[in-house]
Amino acid sequence: MVFWSGRRGSREVPLLRPRVVPTSLTKVDFTELVPEPIPFLGQAAYIQLEAFESLARAVATAPTLGAKEGLSAAAGVALRKHHALIAELRREGVEPVEVMAPFAPATDRFRETSSGADWYELLLGIHVTTGILDGFFGRLAEGLPRDLGDRVRGILAEEGAGDVLRRELERGIAEQPGLADRLALWGRSLVGDALLIARSALRGSGPGAPGQEEIEPVFTELIADHTRRMDALGLTA
Amino acid sequence: MVFWSGRRGSREVPLLRPRVVPTSLTKVDFTELVPEPIPFLGQAAYIQLEAFESLARAVATAPTLGAKEGLSAAAGVALRKHHALIAELRREGVEPVEVMAPFAPATDRFRETSSGADWYELLLGIHVTTGILDGFFGRLAEGLPRDLGDRVRGILAEEGAGDVLRRELERGIAEQPGLADRLALWGRSLVGDALLIARSALRGSGPGAPGQEEIEPVFTELIADHTRRMDALGLTA
Repeated sequence: MVFWSGRRGSREVPLLRPRVVPTSLTKVDFTELVPEPIPFLGQAAYIQLEAFESLARAVATAPTLGAKEGLSAAAGVALRKHHALIAELRREGVEPVEVMAPFAPATDRFRETSSGADWYELLLGIHVTTGILDGFFGRLAEGLPRDLGDRVRGILAEEGAGDVLRRELERGIAEQPGLADRLALWGRSLVGDALLIARSALRGSGPGAPGQEEIEPVFTELIADHTRRMDALGLTA
Repeated sequence: MVFWSGRRGSREVPLLRPRVVPTSLTKVDFTELVPEPIPFLGQAAYIQLEAFESLARAVATAPTLGAKEGLSAAAGVALRKHHALIAELRREGVEPVEVMAPFAPATDRFRETSSGADWYELLLGIHVTTGILDGFFGRLAEGLPRDLGDRVRGILAEEGAGDVLRRELERGIAEQPGLADRLALWGRSLVGDALLIARSALRGSGPGAPGQEEIEPVFTELIADHTRRMDALGLTA
């Protein structure tokens, strides 16, 4: 698994500093880490478009009409987020397609690798990756100019696919022996790639770039959120 | 090609009656042909869900980000129509999934057969079939109780995929020699199946059922609309 090198480093010296306390996490200053608003919006918008495509694939391959119905609503939310971010780009006077284009190859590859081997892996892939990335971009938006940042956080905060994904995954896990073990492994393998996408959004995203140290608490928090999502499904993270 | 038997009959005796005059078409009385509101809404809602799935497939396989962007907006419109019709079903106090279920097999088969061999055939398939079916269900809604009928016509009238489909098809036709001929044949082969889906929505839809004679002008009008859509692309209908 490809993993964030900064975090791996921190694991090698676990006793040299205290564990991060959750209440301290809100103090990270994103203003030096967040990219310019336009590339930020472009990458965030393209990620929502990819989330939409994954959800639409889940709709098309759903085993029941009930699942199709719930997932189609979730796909609609991802599409709304995408179009709302696109609208912010237009408001900035730029052509969204041009701004999104540089982010397409890596995001497309990421979607392919996270789409899984069957419908349940596809669902968990969406649940894990949108959980991490919506959380990350929502946090990162704190470093944008105030008004824009508020609007972006509002856009990303809309409750989307979580409920329906959890419901369908729980049903599958209850019905299919062995699915829980397979999904636990699958969920674990997704985290590193999702964090790499997150990290690529930071200004100066090289391994030794300034600010990597400061951002680490946020990654720790994203992983904690991920663990809670897996726990809620009865899966070991 | 499977074709509507009533129309085939009419072709055999072309001289025995005058051609249908467009202005007379609005006089068809749908009240005896339209099904009960609940199955009507169920079938119309499921058809929009399938249109959404086809558009989402077109988004996922689009060759350019510009096409992806335009088609994603069109997919959003189909999804909005679907959810608005679902909301009407909930307002009637029924469970949408149960009402849609009987229409799923035939509509799924129809979507499969109309999805084509490549991206351009997929696009023309959506253009032709949503054109015919949105037109038909919008007309048929005239036979629903007044308020409901008005709301349904409003829902179906929202301009959706037409513009982006026409733009992308025109671009492909201009760039790829031979594509126009292939698409003309493909478009022609889609009409019969779309009319069969339309006809299955009528109350008492057997070949000799009452009202088939009366509905024929509407089918003639749907075919005329189809011909205009094909003409706009420079394709022989």
